[in-house]
Amino acid sequence: MTEFGLIEQLTAGIALSHPASVRGAGDDAAVIACNAGAHKLVCSNMLLEQVHFDLAYTPLKHLGYKAAAVNFSDIFAMNGRPVQLLVSIGVSGKLTQAQITELYGGIRLACGHYGVDIVGGDTTTSLTGLTLALTAVGECAPERVVYRSGAREGDLVCVTGNFGAAYMGLLILEREKKVFEAGGAPSPLDDYEYVAGRYLKPEAQSALIEALGAADVLPTAMIDVSKGLATETILLCRQSNVGVCLFLEKIPIARQTIAAAAELNVNPAVAALHGGEDYEMLFTLPLSLHDKIKDLGKIDIIGHTTPAASGMLLVTSTGSRIPLTAQGLEG
Amino acid sequence: MTEFGLIEQLTAGIALSHPASVRGAGDDAAVIACNAGAHKLVCSNMLLEQVHFDLAYTPLKHLGYKAAAVNFSDIFAMNGRPVQLLVSIGVSGKLTQAQITELYGGIRLACGHYGVDIVGGDTTTSLTGLTLALTAVGECAPERVVYRSGAREGDLVCVTGNFGAAYMGLLILEREKKVFEAGGAPSPLDDYEYVAGRYLKPEAQSALIEALGAADVLPTAMIDVSKGLATETILLCRQSNVGVCLFLEKIPIARQTIAAAAELNVNPAVAALHGGEDYEMLFTLPLSLHDKIKDLGKIDIIGHTTPAASGMLLVTSTGSRIPLTAQGLEG
Repeated sequence: MTEFGLIEQLTAGIALSHPASVRGAGDDAAVIACNAGAHKLVCSNMLLEQVHFDLAYTPLKHLGYKAAAVNFSDIFAMNGRPVQLLVSIGVSGKLTQAQITELYGGIRLACGHYGVDIVGGDTTTSLTGLTLALTAVGECAPERVVYRSGAREGDLVCVTGNFGAAYMGLLILEREKKVFEAGGAPSPLDDYEYVAGRYLKPEAQSALIEALGAADVLPTAMIDVSKGLATETILLCRQSNVGVCLFLEKIPIARQTIAAAAELNVNPAVAALHGGEDYEMLFTLPLSLHDKIKDLGKIDIIGHTTPAASGMLLVTSTGSRIPLTAQGLEG
Repeated sequence: MTEFGLIEQLTAGIALSHPASVRGAGDDAAVIACNAGAHKLVCSNMLLEQVHFDLAYTPLKHLGYKAAAVNFSDIFAMNGRPVQLLVSIGVSGKLTQAQITELYGGIRLACGHYGVDIVGGDTTTSLTGLTLALTAVGECAPERVVYRSGAREGDLVCVTGNFGAAYMGLLILEREKKVFEAGGAPSPLDDYEYVAGRYLKPEAQSALIEALGAADVLPTAMIDVSKGLATETILLCRQSNVGVCLFLEKIPIARQTIAAAAELNVNPAVAALHGGEDYEMLFTLPLSLHDKIKDLGKIDIIGHTTPAASGMLLVTSTGSRIPLTAQGLEG
């Protein structure tokens, strides 16, 4: 099948559900209508084989779903709503047409779930590995856009969900891969379904954005947690020019994460702080909005911002204050 | 240097020149303002090492320039104006930091030339080859958007520039690479500067779009010629549901292309029809606008559209009519 035939097959029957999606795939560019009452939000994420995913244990449908969801997560992190998606795929020769259809099916599933139109992209041959580059377009009323840079001293630091699960899922999947490669029988994944699921098929936090809108609450700053809670906290605080106190025991960790961490002899706090790929939301709220938090669904307050000069600190259960650090941010 | 450090260095000093570029790189998504009088145009293109470029003979600065220009070409092909660019790069370990800076410098050069703001993207490690995925955002008044699908019977088929040069440039570069690999001394490229330049550093047809606006001329259909004149003609005619007569001797071919083709024993007409990567513009105009063509700069009329039932035909210099075909479109 040629590239043209493949694209036609993959995009067959894709309906455009938003009036703003004026023209989708099939021309030189997608055409998206504007209304003066909304800004457009645009983000891109690249996922590369062997760097971001291992096809030995990543079902292609899940990979497609995740590739879309991580882009939607970025749009939600601006307090926006994703509306359109462009999908560029570099297809390696190892993949059959049925596998590519699976991958694309996962992308379409995520788009259906989040109400997003696929409006274009690029499909090409790859001589190396499977390559995915997706671009999401969203929208948000100008006065509702939330940046990383708006946190002020004395804000509450809040999070959705729990942390470290995706990282433990990845470690479990890597362990089972090694067992399999060594000729052993992999363990049933039943006990690890939650953590493996968090890694393989993350969801973006649309519910928080809806709740913020319904409760008329505007975070001062927000960021999605893709690179680990510590890293994202530092990025948000740096851009807001504030310090932070995070209370280690306030950081939510699922019991399945704790169980998997115990089994693999990993400190669950390390997984939660540095694991990454949680796709939860980290945001700051003025203290005055404390009573509104209950309207936002399940939210945990894990700390508060401080003057920049106070630094970024992690307070342990014994009351020790240690500097909050993250790999990859120095240099 | 870490990913964060690299991104910071690459995007340092990037100024945003358009008021619509509300927020650029450094947050979860770029923020782009709308005005109700313009649609947004969005396109993505993926360029992969060994598929779309060979670093043996592709200077990284040219590669960056080209990666940006091919996206701008897609926006121009909708009769729009590119305004923002998102740059996602998968950096292979073979590249030094200086080389990545060169690559990014080429992208920035193109953005400066075409007046486009870099507003975001993604930078990641690649374990395979260098991977580029760029997304351009443009704008166009709704009534000025030109699709591939609007050509009508009896329209003039027009093109900018000339065809086959980039393909001959690629063949020359491939020949010199083989000579070099065999231990020989490559020929000086002086004689091939034009064709090699057309391949390595193509320009997008901004002048045509400006001229169309100034002359208040609206093509019925338009497409940029990236995959070869024959392929793009067929795509435009299929989507417009018309047939076409192209006159082979009307297709402009540069003298340097003819010289290189003679040297390499390639039929220049084949290079012009099937070579690809010309990044010229192919568009259709109603016959009634014939007198306006002189206002559009150097434009050649290479044929006319016909009823769909008449098929797509190439008329040779002897008057023979042969079917217009293109690889990759069947299937």
